[in-house]
Amino acid sequence: MNDLPIYLDCNATTPVDPLVALAMQPWLGKHFGNPSSVHPYGKEAKAAVETARAEVAALIGGRPGDMIFCGSATEANNLAIFGVARALRGDQRHLVTSAIEHPSVMQPMRWLEAEGWQLTVLPVDGTGRVRMEAAAQAIRRDTALVSVMLANNETGTMQPVLEIAALAHAHGALMHVDAAQAAGKIPVDGNDLGADLLTLAGHKFYAPKGVGALYLRAGTPILPIMAGAGHERGLRPGTENVPHIVALGTAARLAQEGLVREAARLQALRDALHERLVIAIPGVAGWQLLAATPEIAASTGSACHAGGQTVSDVLAAMSMPQEQALGALRLSLGRFTTEAEIDGAANALINAWRGLTSTAGS
Amino acid sequence: MNDLPIYLDCNATTPVDPLVALAMQPWLGKHFGNPSSVHPYGKEAKAAVETARAEVAALIGGRPGDMIFCGSATEANNLAIFGVARALRGDQRHLVTSAIEHPSVMQPMRWLEAEGWQLTVLPVDGTGRVRMEAAAQAIRRDTALVSVMLANNETGTMQPVLEIAALAHAHGALMHVDAAQAAGKIPVDGNDLGADLLTLAGHKFYAPKGVGALYLRAGTPILPIMAGAGHERGLRPGTENVPHIVALGTAARLAQEGLVREAARLQALRDALHERLVIAIPGVAGWQLLAATPEIAASTGSACHAGGQTVSDVLAAMSMPQEQALGALRLSLGRFTTEAEIDGAANALINAWRGLTSTAGS
Repeated sequence: MNDLPIYLDCNATTPVDPLVALAMQPWLGKHFGNPSSVHPYGKEAKAAVETARAEVAALIGGRPGDMIFCGSATEANNLAIFGVARALRGDQRHLVTSAIEHPSVMQPMRWLEAEGWQLTVLPVDGTGRVRMEAAAQAIRRDTALVSVMLANNETGTMQPVLEIAALAHAHGALMHVDAAQAAGKIPVDGNDLGADLLTLAGHKFYAPKGVGALYLRAGTPILPIMAGAGHERGLRPGTENVPHIVALGTAARLAQEGLVREAARLQALRDALHERLVIAIPGVAGWQLLAATPEIAASTGSACHAGGQTVSDVLAAMSMPQEQALGALRLSLGRFTTEAEIDGAANALINAWRGLTSTAGS
Repeated sequence: MNDLPIYLDCNATTPVDPLVALAMQPWLGKHFGNPSSVHPYGKEAKAAVETARAEVAALIGGRPGDMIFCGSATEANNLAIFGVARALRGDQRHLVTSAIEHPSVMQPMRWLEAEGWQLTVLPVDGTGRVRMEAAAQAIRRDTALVSVMLANNETGTMQPVLEIAALAHAHGALMHVDAAQAAGKIPVDGNDLGADLLTLAGHKFYAPKGVGALYLRAGTPILPIMAGAGHERGLRPGTENVPHIVALGTAARLAQEGLVREAARLQALRDALHERLVIAIPGVAGWQLLAATPEIAASTGSACHAGGQTVSDVLAAMSMPQEQALGALRLSLGRFTTEAEIDGAANALINAWRGLTSTAGS
């Protein structure tokens, strides 16, 4: 397990920041209490959870009481969508989402549709951005919930969330924003975005896999989707994952401290990579190019359907020509990506592409 | 956070075994991949998850393919109950459980009851054991699912699961066993118990909080309760919590290796403690005694309703007189409990009880 390739797949998952891993250690060691216990082991664990809650809330401009810890962003998305659907028992039986959502948003929407809810799926333009005119047509008086992601996991395209939230609120609908790919990478403020609910994914900003959070504006109608003891204000039962929650808090604090500086650094690295590469690589499928580049760990699309040699749903929704879509490569950079790695990756990809195209042409 | 009291609350949560914490470290460090990624980072993470799956399966005599990893035992119980209820769409609309289940079993049952399912709650006798004659009366042709725990979290009482499973199967019902308080502490074999579904809790056997597993006998009808990408055979979406899953696997292996030896050691320690203490302490409420014994971290009941100065549901179901029930103390021992700690705890409790009763009598 020693000679690992250059990691350019930070949209699939990020490394755990060493400072985050360090912050977890006491809670995997001597300080192992159950936060529900009233003795000192429990009290210190409870205090650590509440410190983390404040740190995560601060990252997105929320109040500590607005944050519900979950086992993943998938769970947070499920809680947001099913939780709101269960809470709203009126005439609002219409849902709106976009064609490029993560399966943990799209699939709950489809389940509700199968249960009798009406669902409108908004199309995107050629850049992968939700068409505002479609949103304006779709959102109506009986719309209960609109869910649109902030940044797409395959293309990085930012969505017009603020404008869509304004439309939703004008029609009395709630707005959910899956910010799994954005929070911790760029400044995100739930309130400024007009989000009533907003999803965070720990493992997209240097916390471990297995922890997420749902921001919930005070007063948002929601019911739990699992039943048990009364953890997390009765909205998410199950003994708290203290080490991961501490990790999420620390990751949020580290992200917030370095957000502007890091965003600029990544932009420069991305530009350098872009300059070196012809981004669309016609004539060679993305998976072929990756297979010929063992020096790099990257992907052709989301990890959720990794290995697929088919066009991703997101690129299909963008109406990208099939040849171009099959040529797609997702190279996603992160906090620990270096200039030397970018140079090495660019060289490896260019060499592999030359090899493949000269073979194909011979 | 240095002078922590003697920990006698292992039924609330156990310490993380240092070997378990050690096994997690690579997956919080260099080996951080998403198991769904097809590059080496992903493949090694996937392999680690599958190794853990085999280790956890071995603990309960299952096959690796029978195990679904979850974010907690609460989630595993919810998946078992709601998942079976969603999958069974026939004439079976009756559920059976016992009066002393954990809230993550009882509450899903109550939710289903509110949705129109019929529910029978089996009473227990004065020792906290489910009454078999009640089970025999309750289970019938239209019973879909019977859920009875293996060992109670407050009293430790073992339930007649094997006999109840035989009744369930004779009537065409499925059997779920919440083994959260038993697995990893005593030998548990899902097949021998007749369980179709069986719940494990990592943090009850020296893995961290935030991971559980559901054993699912091949062919058991079940549907997922959350929607998303197709992780865990489509039954539990969300990127896998690799460090915690590795921890659960390691904890299962360590438990299995030491199970018989450790059970005998704990029995001896428990007997020693019992000899030193008058277990029922009339005239002094359990919480009062604990408050007067800061040298010890223990509880009066489950952590789920810690701090309560009311009689627990479990003791109430046992029809224990209120004075006796309020005197209840739960002293639960574990792998790292020493003879010296037992001595110290017994001395502290006896002194505190003397102090309280002499004050009360003066």
